[in-house]
This record gives sequence, structure tokens and C-alpha cells, in this order.
Amino acid sequence: MSIPVPPVPTFPPSPLTLTSVPGLRAAGVRAGIKASGLPDVALLVADAPMACAGLFTQNHFAAAPVTVSKSHLLRSGGQVRAVIINSGNANACTGAQGDKDALEMCTRVAQALGCPVEQVLVCSTGVIGVKLPMDTVRAGIDLAVQELSSDVEAGRRFLSAIMTTDAFPKETGVQHNGATIAGVCKGAGMIEPNMATMLAFVATDWDLRTEQLKRSLPTIAATSFNAVHVDTHTSTNDTFLLLATKKVAPPTDWARHVEPVARRLSWLIARDGEGATKVTTIEVTGAATDEAARAIARRVASSALVRTALFGNDPNWGRFTSQVGNAPEVRTARSLSCVLQGIEVFRAGEPTDFDRAAAAAAMAVDDVKLELKLADGPGRAAVMTSDLGYRYVQVNAEYTT
Amino acid sequence: MSIPVPPVPTFPPSPLTLTSVPGLRAAGVRAGIKASGLPDVALLVADAPMACAGLFTQNHFAAAPVTVSKSHLLRSGGQVRAVIINSGNANACTGAQGDKDALEMCTRVAQALGCPVEQVLVCSTGVIGVKLPMDTVRAGIDLAVQELSSDVEAGRRFLSAIMTTDAFPKETGVQHNGATIAGVCKGAGMIEPNMATMLAFVATDWDLRTEQLKRSLPTIAATSFNAVHVDTHTSTNDTFLLLATKKVAPPTDWARHVEPVARRLSWLIARDGEGATKVTTIEVTGAATDEAARAIARRVASSALVRTALFGNDPNWGRFTSQVGNAPEVRTARSLSCVLQGIEVFRAGEPTDFDRAAAAAAMAVDDVKLELKLADGPGRAAVMTSDLGYRYVQVNAEYTT
Repeated sequence: MSIPVPPVPTFPPSPLTLTSVPGLRAAGVRAGIKASGLPDVALLVADAPMACAGLFTQNHFAAAPVTVSKSHLLRSGGQVRAVIINSGNANACTGAQGDKDALEMCTRVAQALGCPVEQVLVCSTGVIGVKLPMDTVRAGIDLAVQELSSDVEAGRRFLSAIMTTDAFPKETGVQHNGATIAGVCKGAGMIEPNMATMLAFVATDWDLRTEQLKRSLPTIAATSFNAVHVDTHTSTNDTFLLLATKKVAPPTDWARHVEPVARRLSWLIARDGEGATKVTTIEVTGAATDEAARAIARRVASSALVRTALFGNDPNWGRFTSQVGNAPEVRTARSLSCVLQGIEVFRAGEPTDFDRAAAAAAMAVDDVKLELKLADGPGRAAVMTSDLGYRYVQVNAEYTT
Repeated sequence: MSIPVPPVPTFPPSPLTLTSVPGLRAAGVRAGIKASGLPDVALLVADAPMACAGLFTQNHFAAAPVTVSKSHLLRSGGQVRAVIINSGNANACTGAQGDKDALEMCTRVAQALGCPVEQVLVCSTGVIGVKLPMDTVRAGIDLAVQELSSDVEAGRRFLSAIMTTDAFPKETGVQHNGATIAGVCKGAGMIEPNMATMLAFVATDWDLRTEQLKRSLPTIAATSFNAVHVDTHTSTNDTFLLLATKKVAPPTDWARHVEPVARRLSWLIARDGEGATKVTTIEVTGAATDEAARAIARRVASSALVRTALFGNDPNWGRFTSQVGNAPEVRTARSLSCVLQGIEVFRAGEPTDFDRAAAAAAMAVDDVKLELKLADGPGRAAVMTSDLGYRYVQVNAEYTT
């Protein structure tokens, strides 16, 4: 059968990447973990310990690098000199040997930099259930240490070395009153658990303490990486690190400038869901609480029925409203109104007489907005989801473990 | 693009249908609600009030017939003379007029039979958000009353008149010590909310009281209609009625003989998910409680990633285990073992060295079993899911509201 392959979206290259943040050097090298020969070992190093807060997968099968990184963050009090990453192998479901290998990756970097081992974090992404080829990894780490550089190209090589099934690189950045906030990530909708993982690194040169980062991390993630709902899967290796190189005094509202960087990165992940043709932001307002709004939005976002309707540009209000109607968090469902791309398709529990052709045309874009309005209270939340098309089935049914 | 249409499965016709149960007459007529001209008004009548217990949708947007039937069951104390059903129009999201129309359907049947209106229940299934064409419905009801018959063919016509997007009729029955238990249902995986609904009617001639039916209904539904997880949607109109015509003394373990009838009907619904090529029963054992087991099984069953792997005959243990790993109900994930069609693919938290080709071949059948074994406690549950293939996307993306 012939499946139309949606065109890979192109985005203007970001002028800012991780190495744009003063105090950071990076490298990305071809160690040989990936059979493709593509870059697969990445290293990020700060000239002095950074403040760092991390968000990690909640999966019971958290991979060895997640366990090691969490323990190092705890022991170092959130002081981090380096992050070592390999792609092509997730070092997950690899038993005691996996734990040993993840720790050795940190030790090797710490020795090269002359820092305590607990100041080095580790991430892995790629195939699950296969032990790391440690000779290859060691050689890759040594090469990466040699190639560390603060130029933009080194940042780009870092990014290419963390990618697996990504169809395009994901990076973005902003500048604010002389400070830089930049980030890169990898992940294609958490859609292939055996080659999956969301890894994201957002850095700034603001002089922020670990406690400040930790306090704001949940808020920043709530509207970005934790707002992407493509599948209900979270991977064994998911990691989001927020880093500060402490060069410039921060404004009090610093988190408000970091959030859009994280949100843009997570939008790019949703856009890269296999076969995705668009990202839909589902915004729930008027729920009893923010938590209720989030639960309702997630229920709509994770529905295969909703996602196929989005793929088909079908203004199928019945699918949106029946998912809201199924949510136990809803109190007064009959007050529900739905606005799809600015067009009210459902008002106070009944369909409106909207122009279906116009609504369908309005859905045929890269970035769709679906508003679900209740009258239960002040709760609001937004989540992002990618659509579900033929290519999703092809990739996920024909991809062999 | 060309999408392979999976062949419609054929099943040997059941020798038993609703009218096989002594005391029941049925009719199914072409009223003209469906544009296709197919049968669309069905009537089931008992010669004396039956005991009845009902399970209805939890959706906040429950349709008018659901509201009316629940109220009638309450007022009659579970004494039911007739059930009137129309297909082609769900009478959902139709406001106050919808409530009036649903009640009028009952009134018309009650007048024809000379029984109290609260002894008549009503179900509707079909398009949402469109008011019932009541002149057509009235004529259909009058015709159905005339055509009531206790022969098997009348039972078959009843069944054909409740179908909407079903690819094949769904009926089954058993006999036990001279008593009959028979049932019919409609539903294609709750996959098209605008033409959706699961309606099921299971009847027996055992002399059971309403209280007995009510007490056993949740248990019977737990392993049948409530164990089907194709989408997270439940429709506005879902209804399951359990009926007893009170002719024969029941054994004490009567519910044990009713459950397989309900389970077979729900298997047929899962098998009829658009584009489904198989039903997979996901059995969780060793969970902390039965509730925990059910939650874990549901999480696996509703995953688009799991369902595409099932479609592709891909023994992708990573997808199964990572869904278990995401379940908050799991305590000791590292004890997890997975057995797919009798082949152990994952043991105590690590993949086994199983034969992938043999496992893939074992999955290429109508009825697949996936066992997920934990060591948290005695909890167990099983749910059924259909696979997700190209045809699912086609039907759900290209079907226009």
C-alpha cells in the first residue's frame, strides 16, 4: 500500500543554541553506537559549577542514567559541571550492569574535567534492553572532551548527537536585557518507546540558585513538556534539565522569560510526532480548578478519535464534547461551548449552525487551537497534541522491535 | 491512496436470539429514519412485566432516552413490559424537545400495550445533535406493534433494526437445564461518536427479581461490556439491559451462566472496531487489588502505540511494559513478566531471548492474549481491545460529521 508521507516541516534556524549561553562549551561526536554512523555522544560542560534542577520520568522502569543523574543532583546539591549524553542506546532494562555503565560515563567525564563525579549528569536515549557498548562509549567520551568548544557549530553538533528518530533539529533561544536563554531537545512525540525519550536542556547565564530553579521548574514544565500529550506513554529516559551559568543578575520575573523557550521546544516535539501534520493546542477554561482543567484537556488530547478528526480536518464537535462529557472532573457539562480556530461549533450543550466547510479549511494549518469553555470555576489549562494519520500507523505497526 | 479493507469476519449464526426466550416478542421495521432505508425501529415486548436492571452511560451528555429510561426504571421499580428502540438518530444534544420526544415514544408503546408508561424503556442510536423526525418515528412504532412476533425471524429483524455502523450482526445464546439466556447488541467499538452507541439486551426466562439482577449486573458487566476498551469514549447513549421473563426457577449460580453471553457480545463489539483485525484480551494478574489490575489493563488497552503494534503483529514488549511502568497503581514494576500468546517475552523486568518470528506469527490470529504478571498482590482483571490499523484512521479521519 502507498502511504502519503507528510512533508518534513522546515523552520528557520535558531540563531541561538546552548553554546550561545556564556559559560557553556559543547561537543557532539560520532562514537559508533548508532549503526547509521551518525553522531551519538554529546557533552555539555560549564566553566564553573552551574545551578541545575531536573525533571525526570515517572516511569517505574526509569533507566539507569535517570537513577544516576537523580542521585548525583541530590549529592551535589544541584551543582553541575557537565552533562554527558549518548544516543542510539537507552541503557534501560539493562539490570545492574546498566547502573554501573551509567556511573562510569560520569566518572570518565569527571576525571577528564577534574571535578567530583556527582557534578556530572548522564542521559541516554535509543534502543531499550540492550547493554551499552562501553568500549565505544569510552572512546566517544574521550573524543568529545577534546572537541569541546563554545562556538555555535559545537552547539549544533551537540544537538545532532542527541537526536534519534527526530525528523528535524529542535532548538530555540531568546535574549533579554543582555542575558541569554537557549535550549535544545530531542523527541518525536514519545511515539516509539523502543527508540524514544524526550531529552531537553534549557540554559541561561542568569545568576540563579538551584532552589530558585527547582521552585520554578514545575511551573515551566506544566505549560511546556508536561503539556505535550501525544501518547499516554512517558519513556524510561525522559529528562528535562534547567541550567544556570550564573553570569548575570536575573530579573525577578526570570521564569516568565524561560517558559516560552521550553514551550517552543515542546511544540517542536509535538510537531514531530510520526506522521503529524499539525499541533493542536487544547485550551480548557472555566473548569473547577486548574487541575480539573488539565485532566479534561489531557483526556481530549489523548483520544485517538479526536486526533484522527484533527488529521482529517473534520470539525467533529461530537468527538470533542463527548470526551469532555466523559471527564469526571466536569461539573456542569451542559454549559460547555467549543470554539475551533475561532469558530464556535458548540454552545451551551448544543451544536451551532456553523459553516462546516469554513471550519474544515481553518483546521488545515500547522497550528490549531481548540477552546473548550465550561462554567464550573476559574480553572484553566492548555495542552498540545499532534494529529494521528496513516503515517502514524505505518511507523508504529511496521517498525519492528 | 488505497487502504486495504480487512475482510468482514463471519461467524456461524447463533441458533438463539432474544425471541428464543419464552415470554418475549419482537419486531424490527423500516420506518424511514435512516436515509439508507434499512430497518430503524425495533420493539421488544414481554407478555407480562419483566424484572429489569440497566447500566447506562456515565457521560455528562447522556441522551434524552437514557434519562427517560433511568427515570422509568426507578418509578416502575424495575418492572418492564417493553423496550422501544430507534436507530439512525441518537436523540442526543437535542435539548428539551429531545426529552419530550423520548417520552412520547414510551407513551405511544404504553398506549398500544395498555400498560403504565413507566413500564416502557427507550433507546436511540445514530447521529447526535439532530432532532427526531417524530412523524416517521410514530409510524414506525405503530408498524412495529403490529408486527410483534415470537419467532426467530422477528428476533433477527429486531437485531437488524438496532444496528448502525455494525459490519455484522451480534447475537448469542445458551441453554441451561431448560432455561434460555440470549442476547443481542450493537456497537462497533464506540469508535464513531456521531454514529456510535453500545446497546445490549440480554434476556432470560429465569424467575429473577429486579434486586437480584441489579446486584449481579456490575459483576457481569465488569468482565464484558465494561471490559471493552477501544477508545476512551463512552457514548451519550450506551445502555445495557438485563431482563428476566420469570418463567423458570433459577439456579443459585444463575449469573455465572449469563456472564458468558454478555462477554461474547462484548467480544463481538471489540471485533467490529473499524478496521480491527483481531481482539486482544489483556490480562493483568498479581496487582495489588482487582481495581489496580483493571486500571493497569485499561492503560495498556487504550494505548494507540500498543494497538498499532497489535495490528502490525509486532511483539513489541517495550510498548506493553512501558505502559505498565507508567501506571501509578503498580508497586513493584521490576517484577513484571509478559506472556504474549503463551510466549514469555519479558521476565522480571528484563527482555527474554524469545523467537521474534514465532511470536509475530502467533499474533496473526483473530483472538490474541497478552498476560501481564506482577507480584504486588492477588488483584486480577482482563480487558479486551481491538487493534488500530490504517482503516481506523481512514474511517475516523474521512468520516464527516
